[in-house]
Amino acid sequence: MTRFALTVEYDGRPFMGWQRQAHGPSVQAAIEAAAHAITGEAVAVHAAGRTDAGVHATGMRAHLDIERTITPFRLMEALNAKLRPAPVAILACESVADDWHARFSCLARHYAYRIVTRRAPLTFETGLAWRVPTPLDVDAMAEGAARLVGRHDFTTFRSAHCQADSPLRTLDRLEVTAQGDRIVVGASARSFLHHQVRSMVGCLSLVGQGKWTPDDVTAALEARDRAALGFNAPPDGLYFLRADYP
Amino acid sequence: MTRFALTVEYDGRPFMGWQRQAHGPSVQAAIEAAAHAITGEAVAVHAAGRTDAGVHATGMRAHLDIERTITPFRLMEALNAKLRPAPVAILACESVADDWHARFSCLARHYAYRIVTRRAPLTFETGLAWRVPTPLDVDAMAEGAARLVGRHDFTTFRSAHCQADSPLRTLDRLEVTAQGDRIVVGASARSFLHHQVRSMVGCLSLVGQGKWTPDDVTAALEARDRAALGFNAPPDGLYFLRADYP
Repeated sequence: MTRFALTVEYDGRPFMGWQRQAHGPSVQAAIEAAAHAITGEAVAVHAAGRTDAGVHATGMRAHLDIERTITPFRLMEALNAKLRPAPVAILACESVADDWHARFSCLARHYAYRIVTRRAPLTFETGLAWRVPTPLDVDAMAEGAARLVGRHDFTTFRSAHCQADSPLRTLDRLEVTAQGDRIVVGASARSFLHHQVRSMVGCLSLVGQGKWTPDDVTAALEARDRAALGFNAPPDGLYFLRADYP
Repeated sequence: MTRFALTVEYDGRPFMGWQRQAHGPSVQAAIEAAAHAITGEAVAVHAAGRTDAGVHATGMRAHLDIERTITPFRLMEALNAKLRPAPVAILACESVADDWHARFSCLARHYAYRIVTRRAPLTFETGLAWRVPTPLDVDAMAEGAARLVGRHDFTTFRSAHCQADSPLRTLDRLEVTAQGDRIVVGASARSFLHHQVRSMVGCLSLVGQGKWTPDDVTAALEARDRAALGFNAPPDGLYFLRADYP
């Protein structure tokens, strides 16, 4: 048996999310089906993060175990061939130690959330960014973001369906940068709660619109209450960028 | 009557090109239909460049004349509403002088051609960039590009269907830049021949692969013969960026 680590890019639009679902396509099922077609083995694929429906990845990490002898390069090529025409691409593949785990060995996860501020509808990027029809105050958003960095109880920013044992998380980075009508919110942490990035971005968008002040972000955090959440941003703009390992 | 100048973004994938066609959707027909639905008038839309099937625009300029009284802002909003769900967006709209012509008043046209060099298939960008499976020598491509700048007979780089009176054109800029696995070829001229940008990029890709030298580009240009063309790049990577006016 060889364990292979994959770097995966996917367009989340046609999928119900990373995780295998009974009633719809998932990225996990697509890769597992491709691996089964190549090896004849019942393959389980584990990812660093289980992204929601409509969420994208440019550098998701995942692993799978294969009994048959195959080189990483051949496996990558064969997976990409079998995955077509699904918008999933294996960008890299390497053999790793048997105890390397895409989810449990992961030391940090990095996301980006892309916003486009303009009145006109999106064309190329429909479903690939969140369009906000008014300009946003990026400096205020950055000030609001700074209130969330650090170790906190993120209950306010956590989905009702979140399965994590604890709402405590250490947010290492939450940065807001802008270029023209494009705003990117970058977020890094060892791990995130379910919907945490989208919930944080939703509140920051209220700050950008002047509906909330940075103090309102602090108050929402301190409320430790999902009802204090201003707004959950749509999945369209969220990208899993990268996972770090020892 | 008021003449309106539009700035138009479109995803060329579902279209047979800018120009109205008997047997398929075009960007021109989509905008004309939207304008007719708003005004009840038979509206003709003229563009700075008539892009081919599958070619995109981020800043195409066009104009149309409308009898009914309407503000530029209302026209833009109504066009965007009527254009849905076609991937065409009116980014700006202004009233201009009656003799302003999107095509004939245009002083310069700017294109970009996007290449992604990687083995893995594209996901987000299928049809939005040209994937080349091997690395390209960007310095050699830039040297090849420099051979084409200036006033030349571009017969080699001209489609058999080109309707221009003369193959003489002045290429003001042909620049090759790279960032990671992304290469952009930027081209500027007062006007281009049909397929000129794609033909130039095709030859530069041969230089990037080491199949041609920059001297081969010069030889192809001097041949003044379509048969000397190395390769016509696909429409996927081509974007009309901007048009300049007095």
